[in-house]
Amino acid sequence: MITETPHPPYYAVIFTSLLSDDTAGYAEMAEHMVELASQQSGFLGMESAREGVGITVSYWASLEAIRAWKAQLDHRQAQRLGREQWYASYRTRIARVEREYGP
Amino acid sequence: MITETPHPPYYAVIFTSLLSDDTAGYAEMAEHMVELASQQSGFLGMESAREGVGITVSYWASLEAIRAWKAQLDHRQAQRLGREQWYASYRTRIARVEREYGP
Repeated sequence: MITETPHPPYYAVIFTSLLSDDTAGYAEMAEHMVELASQQSGFLGMESAREGVGITVSYWASLEAIRAWKAQLDHRQAQRLGREQWYASYRTRIARVEREYGP
Repeated sequence: MITETPHPPYYAVIFTSLLSDDTAGYAEMAEHMVELASQQSGFLGMESAREGVGITVSYWASLEAIRAWKAQLDHRQAQRLGREQWYASYRTRIARVEREYGP
């Protein structure tokens, strides 16, 4: 549920989105993308919640791992459908995690 | 809903949590914290969703602004109650946003 990440530094992709009215196929694709991402080299984990706004944070060992995931063919197809159909709005932020703490 | 942030770099605090069974007072405090954070110097915006896991990402102009917010008195009280009562588990990650893109 809450990802066990290694000691920083590592990278986070913060993806926030608002869905459009046309979400046909979205849930299946989202599930497929989680499965696919978790098989990518350098994938460290993912946290996701939607409540009005959707927030998905995925964690990666390097910028190169993020680039490879962005370029992955099925993921490119999902990105295109997202832009054209599913998302009313979205934002992707690439960030370097510098500190982490918890209980 | 989706924060309009300036050109990177800026900073993100990624706070993920699982609630305990004792959430008395939590909703009111969460609302108060959003209000309070948005009055802090260097605050750029906040996105939040809970669906099982809760994810709150707040955006800040600098690490100093994040430090000041962490040390703010009412916020320290909220953090203490979070640790002792509301959260079954949580993680705070401080990250430097290096790239951002959207439609």
